[in-house]
Amino acid sequence: MHNDLTTLDTPAAIISLEKMQRNIARMQQRANALGVRFRPHVKTTKCAEVAAAQRAAGASGITVSTLKEAEQFFAQGETDILYAVGMAPHRLAQALDLRARGCGLQIMTDSVAGAQAIADFGRQHAHAFEVLIEIDTDGHRSGIKPDEDALLDVGRVLHRGGMHLAGVLTHAGSSYELDTPAAIAQLAEQERAGCVRAAQRLRAAGLPCEIVSVGSTPTALEAASLEGVTELRAGVYVLFDLVMRNVGVCREEDIALSVLTTVIGHQADKGWAIVDAGWMAMSRDRGTSKQQRDYGYGQVCTLDGQPLAGYLLSGANQEHGILSAQGAPDTDIVNRFPMGTRLRVLPNHACATGAQFPQYHALAEDGTLRTWERFHGW
Amino acid sequence: MHNDLTTLDTPAAIISLEKMQRNIARMQQRANALGVRFRPHVKTTKCAEVAAAQRAAGASGITVSTLKEAEQFFAQGETDILYAVGMAPHRLAQALDLRARGCGLQIMTDSVAGAQAIADFGRQHAHAFEVLIEIDTDGHRSGIKPDEDALLDVGRVLHRGGMHLAGVLTHAGSSYELDTPAAIAQLAEQERAGCVRAAQRLRAAGLPCEIVSVGSTPTALEAASLEGVTELRAGVYVLFDLVMRNVGVCREEDIALSVLTTVIGHQADKGWAIVDAGWMAMSRDRGTSKQQRDYGYGQVCTLDGQPLAGYLLSGANQEHGILSAQGAPDTDIVNRFPMGTRLRVLPNHACATGAQFPQYHALAEDGTLRTWERFHGW
Repeated sequence: MHNDLTTLDTPAAIISLEKMQRNIARMQQRANALGVRFRPHVKTTKCAEVAAAQRAAGASGITVSTLKEAEQFFAQGETDILYAVGMAPHRLAQALDLRARGCGLQIMTDSVAGAQAIADFGRQHAHAFEVLIEIDTDGHRSGIKPDEDALLDVGRVLHRGGMHLAGVLTHAGSSYELDTPAAIAQLAEQERAGCVRAAQRLRAAGLPCEIVSVGSTPTALEAASLEGVTELRAGVYVLFDLVMRNVGVCREEDIALSVLTTVIGHQADKGWAIVDAGWMAMSRDRGTSKQQRDYGYGQVCTLDGQPLAGYLLSGANQEHGILSAQGAPDTDIVNRFPMGTRLRVLPNHACATGAQFPQYHALAEDGTLRTWERFHGW
Repeated sequence: MHNDLTTLDTPAAIISLEKMQRNIARMQQRANALGVRFRPHVKTTKCAEVAAAQRAAGASGITVSTLKEAEQFFAQGETDILYAVGMAPHRLAQALDLRARGCGLQIMTDSVAGAQAIADFGRQHAHAFEVLIEIDTDGHRSGIKPDEDALLDVGRVLHRGGMHLAGVLTHAGSSYELDTPAAIAQLAEQERAGCVRAAQRLRAAGLPCEIVSVGSTPTALEAASLEGVTELRAGVYVLFDLVMRNVGVCREEDIALSVLTTVIGHQADKGWAIVDAGWMAMSRDRGTSKQQRDYGYGQVCTLDGQPLAGYLLSGANQEHGILSAQGAPDTDIVNRFPMGTRLRVLPNHACATGAQFPQYHALAEDGTLRTWERFHGW
């Protein structure tokens, strides 16, 4: 028997194929218009079919956040893989093994200690790793600031150490804290300019720097120019979520991921319906709590995906979600959502919610579902 | 090659066997002293070896939060299984199938609609489900209040419908919001008294009610008497976590779960070390944020598990954690935790953190590790 939304067991992670394809096309068109290659970050979905759809639309290579992602996508035939988390020395053996098997893995560092460990290990094994230097253009996490002395020190350790200094990379993750197009466009320009500046300093010092890689979903969508940049990266755009809705780069109706859930009880006097999507399904992510609009644990929608304005998942235990109306309790909750009612919930954060599920169910416009595996762990 | 803490890839979920066994013994002794059977909630770990250790210490049967847990533990030989989430009508076929294969599955409801669905389906298939009625003793989630008319209505629908009305069950989950032994003991008495009262009302109405099942980790540990109760349940006690430390029922040194992580970079001027345990490893759970002591995303410990007072995981992205000192930045962070340093992080919520990992690594006192699989999804 083939399941549809009325028979699939709950909770389940549903991807609307139509919305996903629209999101993919939108980002690819942005990259094309800006004249840069687009390298999607597959950490959002960890799913072969999603990456294949991104590739089919014109993406070139992938970005990963773990070597397990690199291993899995390499096993599926992808060879152009950027591992965009600072390289831990103990993982160099695994990276070398991937490269020895034909994977064009690029790695990243942001310190002399990290660069030295890579160069030492590379020389020991007569191997030139392809290495990018991580640049910090917004102060939110890792990286070397574009004008720091350390940038050239790291470049020299890699280059003189016989490694292939491939370029520079930055991620303006603080774009998630913004909520106007103007502010995001300004940060996109800061991200671009800082990364290009770092590349220019390396080149001026006689060091190679072919790749200039930037991106986050908001800055990728709002950048006015990417002059000097060679490559754009983004991840969550493929599904979008309520955090991105609040940032202002998508609408609720663009969100391609939802959690299918069933009403399993009520507390009528409180105006609660209890559903079987708790935090194990939604994740504990409360990313909208500090934004302009707090969606609780998610926006409740009808089975066909229409948002029910004002109805949120207001609380969550492991396998219980509390569905309620904002403001005064809905005294008619039992009749509105009777026992067994099926609903869908838009998530705060697609990366975190997806990670709670072993698979997605891809929903076609004709209502059929296909099961897409995603992988788990490290 | 056998891994130890110095060679295992990171991030990884480590269970201290010694601490786990001590926690198991402590709860079992409580149940024995109170004169009730103990039925652990296996949703915390979803791991055969942990459940086996609980059984070896005297536990009897298990509690589960999904039918997948029931299927998995039944496949491993457990037949006494309580599914402690309100029964969704669409899951009755799966429950019947489990029972037909010899699993002594008990199910639960808290409404006339739910009871009716169970009785109708049972009669249709000539099967008497064993059903408990969920009682709400603290207003935190599901259940019927002990004095509500609906209690007898539900009991009658089940009993007259030919089902086996097995008893009543409650879970005082609001105990997680308390932080003094006296307040927890008071709630434990409220939990006990409310559930016993519900049982008495059913019996007075001529309905059967053999089982009176109560529990949450805090109330189980602080209850002065469980008179009238037949069964105690608790889950997170087996590992404990920082939320339970703040509730006051364990110490940091009782927490058996930690996340092994590696330092992958620094932002020296900010006093940050960047580690490879982000929210994908720790979960997004920020359960200590509203408690007496906020641990951020976790308490940082040395590799041998000693808490480093004042050092927290203060921020988290998907695969990046930000480690910092509370208060003024630690200007010596690069030397204190050099690139490649291995640390362990105590989690806010053991149930949520465990769920991020496909397996635990059980650490024996001699430093050896065993891999314990846990299952994922629904």
